[in-house]
Amino acid sequence: MKRKAFNKVAVIGLGLIGGSLAWALKRSRRVRNVFGVDTDEETIEYALKKQIIDEGSRDIAKGAQGAEIVVIATHVGAIVKMAKSLIPLVSEGTIITDVGSVKGKIVREIEGVIPPHLHFLGGHPIAGTENSGIANADPKLFKGRRFILTPTEKTALVVKSRIATLWELVGIEIHEMDIDVHDRVFGFVSHLPHAIAYSLMDAILSEDDSDTLFNFAGGGLRDYTRVAASSPEMWSEILIANKETVLAAIKQFKISLDKIAAAIADEDLDMLREILSKASRSRREKVK
Amino acid sequence: MKRKAFNKVAVIGLGLIGGSLAWALKRSRRVRNVFGVDTDEETIEYALKKQIIDEGSRDIAKGAQGAEIVVIATHVGAIVKMAKSLIPLVSEGTIITDVGSVKGKIVREIEGVIPPHLHFLGGHPIAGTENSGIANADPKLFKGRRFILTPTEKTALVVKSRIATLWELVGIEIHEMDIDVHDRVFGFVSHLPHAIAYSLMDAILSEDDSDTLFNFAGGGLRDYTRVAASSPEMWSEILIANKETVLAAIKQFKISLDKIAAAIADEDLDMLREILSKASRSRREKVK
Repeated sequence: MKRKAFNKVAVIGLGLIGGSLAWALKRSRRVRNVFGVDTDEETIEYALKKQIIDEGSRDIAKGAQGAEIVVIATHVGAIVKMAKSLIPLVSEGTIITDVGSVKGKIVREIEGVIPPHLHFLGGHPIAGTENSGIANADPKLFKGRRFILTPTEKTALVVKSRIATLWELVGIEIHEMDIDVHDRVFGFVSHLPHAIAYSLMDAILSEDDSDTLFNFAGGGLRDYTRVAASSPEMWSEILIANKETVLAAIKQFKISLDKIAAAIADEDLDMLREILSKASRSRREKVK
Repeated sequence: MKRKAFNKVAVIGLGLIGGSLAWALKRSRRVRNVFGVDTDEETIEYALKKQIIDEGSRDIAKGAQGAEIVVIATHVGAIVKMAKSLIPLVSEGTIITDVGSVKGKIVREIEGVIPPHLHFLGGHPIAGTENSGIANADPKLFKGRRFILTPTEKTALVVKSRIATLWELVGIEIHEMDIDVHDRVFGFVSHLPHAIAYSLMDAILSEDDSDTLFNFAGGGLRDYTRVAASSPEMWSEILIANKETVLAAIKQFKISLDKIAAAIADEDLDMLREILSKASRSRREKVK
């Protein structure tokens, strides 16, 4: 029998990320009790039947009890509230962590309320897909992907090390980032592209002949709007939680789009070719 | 030996599309002589060595001579000029066709100059990738994809039937579309997404910390900007050739983006969720 790294880890919210994490932890056989909490009874039954979790309950108190680590894997908009609910329920020394795509606002708010006998450390596994829910959970979801730990000056070394250990069990590569750098990076490379994909779908839907247009969606639009199939509930909360960066990124994007539109309007082939060449070269060299 | 459908088909421009077409035609064994024309001697040598073509030359006159069909597979910006150059070189009854991603302007200009003893019919195989050049040619590129024939009121039935026969040899599905409908459809589902992808790359490149941003490009940005790796020469010409529709599409897209940005700025979760839900549902239902 493998040496256990943890006695009990509770995962709150058995969606794509929470379900995949619980499943991968259970498969690692390094956690004695992977406990799943979800508001939906059927999800818990499914998770038990599929051996994604060892135990499950709709009651967060049962999940919190005796857990060394509690991972909040709910929607971004529910994380702070959930952390506050957990505070009176967990034992001394428990580490609460999350998997939210936005960190600044969440980490600051939780650090503002967490008592000294507990710990909070934010995290973000870069491993989503456009699918959601436990039915899409996959114990290999995190293999070879990257996990961003976002410690602050308040984070104890031992806390960082425990959360890193937890995520290493599921095969993910650990990185560290400042909370604001995190929100800036993902505001540009993830939240902005999502806002654009939804806008592109919305623009085509606004046209009278949208069904004809969609009928020839081909490669371009299909790839382009894949992320627009993602959960609208989740993404509405992410875009608002990272409001400042997302709005700044949209602003910068519109400047670039206007520059390209102006070159098209002026039929300035040289200018357009120059802008597109630079973008194309960078895409080949910098986006791996 | 298979019955031949054509004695000689000339393909002008052995890039990704021209090279793949020539190769697929040669493999079909239904064309006696697949003749390749390119400005680059090495490309012709490569095409001969790989048995992509039966004969090749840098001289368009040699390609034109005795060809029943001449396929112009150059960049969009060179198609009209090439058609004009071919007119004095081809035999009576020859059908000139093209593979350009924009049709309205090109078809109108060529129909305006083509003499009554020759024929022109526009076409557009929906089969590009972000890669270009003969090194990426693939005889199976067109299998299961769609080909848009764009006849006008001037197009003789027999001409339409001959071009359809040619493309059927390479396993593509034939559709017909009015030239202006074609440009509208592809302006929205292909040209607009390309303009957006280049703008997104340009926007991130404008940031001082763009290298940090690209370092976490992950799934969203990578998928999103795949098309921005496409040939900038080709795409500059396409965007300008379909100027009116592309600018109208950009305008509509900006209205949608502004609507989303406003909901974010107002932290109007209900409004944002409504816009995103509609886009998300349509992406799942309408984009196959």
